[in-house]
Amino acid sequence: MSVINDLREYFTEIMRLNYIQALLGWDQEVNMRGYKSVEGRSEQLALIAQLMHKRLTSEKAEKLINKAEKLKDLNEIDAAMLREAKRAYEQEVKLPEELVMEITKTAGLSQQTWQKAREKKDFKMFIPLLEKTVELQREKARKLETHPDLYSTLIDLYEPGATYNWVANIFNPIKPKLIDFVKKLNSSTDKPDQSILRKNYDQDKQFKLSLEIIKKLNFDFEAGRQDLSTHPFTTTLSSTDTRITTRTREDFLNECIFGTIHECGHALYEMGFKKELHDTILGTGTSLGIHESQSRMLENFVGRSKEFWMYWYPIFQKTFPENLKDYPMEEFHRAVNSVQPSFIRVNADEVTYGLHIILRFEIEKDLIDEKIQVSELPQIWNSRFEELLGIIPPDDKEGVLQDIHWGMGMIGYFPTYFLGTLYAAQMYDVALKKMPNLPEDYKKGEFSNLLNFVRENVHQHGAVFRAPDLIKRITGENLNSNYFMKYLEKKFYPLYRL
Amino acid sequence: MSVINDLREYFTEIMRLNYIQALLGWDQEVNMRGYKSVEGRSEQLALIAQLMHKRLTSEKAEKLINKAEKLKDLNEIDAAMLREAKRAYEQEVKLPEELVMEITKTAGLSQQTWQKAREKKDFKMFIPLLEKTVELQREKARKLETHPDLYSTLIDLYEPGATYNWVANIFNPIKPKLIDFVKKLNSSTDKPDQSILRKNYDQDKQFKLSLEIIKKLNFDFEAGRQDLSTHPFTTTLSSTDTRITTRTREDFLNECIFGTIHECGHALYEMGFKKELHDTILGTGTSLGIHESQSRMLENFVGRSKEFWMYWYPIFQKTFPENLKDYPMEEFHRAVNSVQPSFIRVNADEVTYGLHIILRFEIEKDLIDEKIQVSELPQIWNSRFEELLGIIPPDDKEGVLQDIHWGMGMIGYFPTYFLGTLYAAQMYDVALKKMPNLPEDYKKGEFSNLLNFVRENVHQHGAVFRAPDLIKRITGENLNSNYFMKYLEKKFYPLYRL
Repeated sequence: MSVINDLREYFTEIMRLNYIQALLGWDQEVNMRGYKSVEGRSEQLALIAQLMHKRLTSEKAEKLINKAEKLKDLNEIDAAMLREAKRAYEQEVKLPEELVMEITKTAGLSQQTWQKAREKKDFKMFIPLLEKTVELQREKARKLETHPDLYSTLIDLYEPGATYNWVANIFNPIKPKLIDFVKKLNSSTDKPDQSILRKNYDQDKQFKLSLEIIKKLNFDFEAGRQDLSTHPFTTTLSSTDTRITTRTREDFLNECIFGTIHECGHALYEMGFKKELHDTILGTGTSLGIHESQSRMLENFVGRSKEFWMYWYPIFQKTFPENLKDYPMEEFHRAVNSVQPSFIRVNADEVTYGLHIILRFEIEKDLIDEKIQVSELPQIWNSRFEELLGIIPPDDKEGVLQDIHWGMGMIGYFPTYFLGTLYAAQMYDVALKKMPNLPEDYKKGEFSNLLNFVRENVHQHGAVFRAPDLIKRITGENLNSNYFMKYLEKKFYPLYRL
Repeated sequence: MSVINDLREYFTEIMRLNYIQALLGWDQEVNMRGYKSVEGRSEQLALIAQLMHKRLTSEKAEKLINKAEKLKDLNEIDAAMLREAKRAYEQEVKLPEELVMEITKTAGLSQQTWQKAREKKDFKMFIPLLEKTVELQREKARKLETHPDLYSTLIDLYEPGATYNWVANIFNPIKPKLIDFVKKLNSSTDKPDQSILRKNYDQDKQFKLSLEIIKKLNFDFEAGRQDLSTHPFTTTLSSTDTRITTRTREDFLNECIFGTIHECGHALYEMGFKKELHDTILGTGTSLGIHESQSRMLENFVGRSKEFWMYWYPIFQKTFPENLKDYPMEEFHRAVNSVQPSFIRVNADEVTYGLHIILRFEIEKDLIDEKIQVSELPQIWNSRFEELLGIIPPDDKEGVLQDIHWGMGMIGYFPTYFLGTLYAAQMYDVALKKMPNLPEDYKKGEFSNLLNFVRENVHQHGAVFRAPDLIKRITGENLNSNYFMKYLEKKFYPLYRL
């Protein structure tokens, strides 16, 4: 088995370069705010990327993979390691260097132009670069050829094993149900009032409280930390070092509290890989969708539950008596669960969020298939947006220009956000069946039983099982959206007095 | 000149790896306190070290250097670049890998054993490892062969161009003068009282104040930052990113304030290399001695001057009224200049400090030359300590075991600390001759004229000129210790009412 050992070690060095890259990125976001130049850092990042590329595409990598493929009866972990090594290798060798450089260059230009176009609410100025970006992504998919259709190949980059059809079969049935559900909630005559969350909340106190919360959620401060950054994110700097960031807004409590809980869910995943996988290519989340399931489960299923707030609300009241002393817990809990169709995805609630994603998923498919042209995007966006959410963006800044992802060439990425929620619902359903008293834990600020469940079923396995297999392993069936709809109905009808 | 360009670029990548290594180290000291494991980080550091070694010892490096050596009429900078490239190359190729590994391994064991020996005040248990360490350093010097005598070769590692004789010629004359001077100050019947510095000072306020001070000293917060760490240090993470750390002690004001000013001096050097040298092998301090001259000049010549405190003391009084409101500035200034023979080098004042270094310098020479044995070190340390400072360490923890440097194989390093002070004195004398009103600036919290002087004469040149040449360039003469003695006499006689 020395071939497998050699393969493991060869990719361990690549993982280490990955970790180093992550530190360079973390530090830039957290510690270099206000710097007049980050040029040096960019050069360092480029150097590490180049070293990784060299090592991934080397003859030695090829030989090791070829040799390992001849081995028979590999155990589950070794087989997965070979699969991931091959995947990483092929993603690098199949793409011509000129194409990679062109994509990087175009993404840079695109980012600048997108910013200007967004500010000026002028989609037209973005058209040429977005057209080029889409064509480059098509070209990338043609070279990678993971699946017969281009869009599936792109989806597979972020959600290995998933295809367009697989995702469509999951999204299609829930789409009309969600549309109806939002309408129903909107018809309520006793909706939650969100204004309590928009009072003034001291930012330092918010940050300190968020640290207390993730401590209770079992974030390991001896193997990680939380800092502030412009955009919250989670990053892993070694098998024993996962860091999250958050941000605070004085006039909106949600930003810090739910942002922190969300990132904590990502971090617990990264902190939970079994030792055997440490420093190997399997010591990572198996897909963005599964990663998102861990963050959404904690943020929404746990963090927006009544039981959660039965423990935390008194602490919040003590911390912010000026706003909360006389405000009832029940109303506060309703406030953090307010549902309202809105234009901006990142601010969407857990009910309407999926519709934002379905919109992008459907448009991406048609774009890649050349059924729609880039220039048509604003009209198509707006008319489909109205179909899904019942409102029309007043301009492209609130519409098609709101996200940077397409401009950066990230097509096939959006679906993973909603898949995460659906994975979470289906897993959480199993957890509740096994441990019906789980929410009772939350009332006591206790989250170990839940953590043990996801550790056992999800975290420890890292990238050993692919997402579609993993969900079947855990729940006994393929991913479907029924669990999420049931969860929504059970939770929101009472909250909306329906 | 494409050879020179190739050489520059080749070493620029090595500089970038250096910067990455520095970030890995900085982050470990600043952000990983309390972590239960830093193993992952150690592996990453080892990987970068290995990549640097590979690149430094490659055939390509050799070829580029050989080609460049055939070029004629290189300009000052290109010639220096070739010199430093060759030096870096030779330091790597001349040392057999087994020797380097043995040194690293021994240093690791040594560090652990030193810690225990120090705690137990038991030098004997440290003897075998220290003997091995010294022999490994002799072997290293034999392989490097930079100078005919081994100790000079070791000194040259830290102070390029310096030899034992060169240093001895500087240290020998000042040694008896310093001994006498300390005795004279000690004979005063009106010595400063240091107790005011040992009251309770809020640590957050100390840190904030230290930030204010370095802001005035022209530390560029758009190209660097200050954080807390266990041991203060300065590190450079790119041509536009130099960071310092400090520490605070509630019961001793000096620790943070003068530690910060000291590191700020180092940082200003690193922040001041001219653009042409950025990212080249010359974009670094030319020697540890010159580096130390910049930190000591700021810490002692400026930061312990009366004029400095005429500006800052009122601010300190406002910040710490409970201690300072009724305490006169003049007495405070005397307190920060208190001179007292003591056992521990790192706590020594600016007068006795040099004697601590001369002790180590003389012992190092005899050790390397096998004129004394490791086992004899405690007696020799104590008897020579008494000759120099008039007191005898009560045990080896306060004596020969206080520093880790020898245990880590750093022999030849100590002299640079005192050389720094002597360089500073000689440079500062020129600065005062050119700008006699310099101290008037300090009264207004103004330090740009001083900065311009060191930028012009020292900082901008990076490693272009070697230290012995640089001091001659700036002052018109070789380094000598007279300027420092004159500075001491002028400053301390009045402070000691002599």
